[in-house]
Amino acid sequence: MRIRTVEGIPEIQAGDDIASILDSLDSPGADDVVVIASTIVSKAEGRSRRLEEFTPSERANDIARRLCERSGEEKDPRFAQAVLEESTELLIEDPFLLTVTHFGHIGVNAGIDRTNVGDGSDILLLPEDPIESARRISTHLNNRPPVIISDTSGRPFRYGQRGVAIGWANIPATRDWRGATDRQGRTLHVTVEAIVDELAAAANLVTGESDEGRPVAYVEDWLPADLDGGDRLFRAVESDFVRQALRGWRYDS
Amino acid sequence: MRIRTVEGIPEIQAGDDIASILDSLDSPGADDVVVIASTIVSKAEGRSRRLEEFTPSERANDIARRLCERSGEEKDPRFAQAVLEESTELLIEDPFLLTVTHFGHIGVNAGIDRTNVGDGSDILLLPEDPIESARRISTHLNNRPPVIISDTSGRPFRYGQRGVAIGWANIPATRDWRGATDRQGRTLHVTVEAIVDELAAAANLVTGESDEGRPVAYVEDWLPADLDGGDRLFRAVESDFVRQALRGWRYDS
Repeated sequence: MRIRTVEGIPEIQAGDDIASILDSLDSPGADDVVVIASTIVSKAEGRSRRLEEFTPSERANDIARRLCERSGEEKDPRFAQAVLEESTELLIEDPFLLTVTHFGHIGVNAGIDRTNVGDGSDILLLPEDPIESARRISTHLNNRPPVIISDTSGRPFRYGQRGVAIGWANIPATRDWRGATDRQGRTLHVTVEAIVDELAAAANLVTGESDEGRPVAYVEDWLPADLDGGDRLFRAVESDFVRQALRGWRYDS
Repeated sequence: MRIRTVEGIPEIQAGDDIASILDSLDSPGADDVVVIASTIVSKAEGRSRRLEEFTPSERANDIARRLCERSGEEKDPRFAQAVLEESTELLIEDPFLLTVTHFGHIGVNAGIDRTNVGDGSDILLLPEDPIESARRISTHLNNRPPVIISDTSGRPFRYGQRGVAIGWANIPATRDWRGATDRQGRTLHVTVEAIVDELAAAANLVTGESDEGRPVAYVEDWLPADLDGGDRLFRAVESDFVRQALRGWRYDS
């Protein structure tokens, strides 16, 4: 397996066609997995926003006031409003915002980014429907390779951020090893491997976070011939005990 | 960046020296990151156990009884006892066991494995101190490369398992991008990248879960010249709101 970045990608603007930019620079093969940072997908889809576009609701004002009391820093209620509009549920409101996006991803501030935006805007929303974004880019690429839209986010229990998939196309989200046997011939019971998350994490090792500006990686020589799997990546709340626990929890500093 | 598996690794037995096995088969270079599945480290360290070695406490019997009521399947109180002995805290006792190991990792059943054990034993405990295991293996390898001990585990919010690091040596756990600038020259605020977890996830894409028996991968052409970072990978409970929430939560089916 090899992972390499695509060189020469320009600053992406609203309306840009990422598939044709990639095909013209360095067209991915049908068996390469194309991992694209969500930031450039968001920019191409016109998801940059200025804060004045958001009118804070009473709830957004409450949240900003409470976060300000906790941290001592000024918090912008318009930013809280943007997070509310991008979310279907707030899992943690205090001491920070952890929410469920409309497409099922759970992240701090609904994954809204305040760095690397440029273009005069203040914030960058995640793509509205990253699975649809991945489908569109995959279909428009000459060789229709698998495409993953990645984001970086923190996680419970473990410090630091890592790359995860928020959209994918032409590849299952998970690889199902159930029914496979181990070395002693016993059947493996519970092994569903979240391959799109592992591919996003691997790509994040080469794309970097900083000013290097290499938002796309190709994973070569990896795609197996058979990929039995499924398309579920975001847990249903019924089987997510952590999410259930957070619903009943309140921060008490 | 390239990732490849090491071919020809025999079934590991208690007492085996993994470093000399790797050096004799395919010695890793000083700049390769060596990712080793915890299962073979456990086997080499004699962490295979038979269930009759565990005498269930009253608490283990209670847990097994409750899990049996939930699932309708027989649950072995000796297994519950093994999980208790490998844990400092139970975060979820019902409907499954999620615990904190002695070395700070949070996983289902304290990461105890019931597949791929062989050798007449029933279960395989995680290495007792995987950071120490990684240090020992790194030091004994000819070129003293970075070493990561990996495990696969599930996670909140997201379906499926992925590779994570439970031990590491000669490489920081996280890479610190704070202070770096984005394309607009603004300073990035909160970006600490859990590189050892991303490397473990990447390696898991090539080592496989099943009977292929390739428990070691080398990550080549990746190690950056400078790796400013830290060695914290397991969150302190004070900053882990999910862990706090779980302490107050009870399952109610």
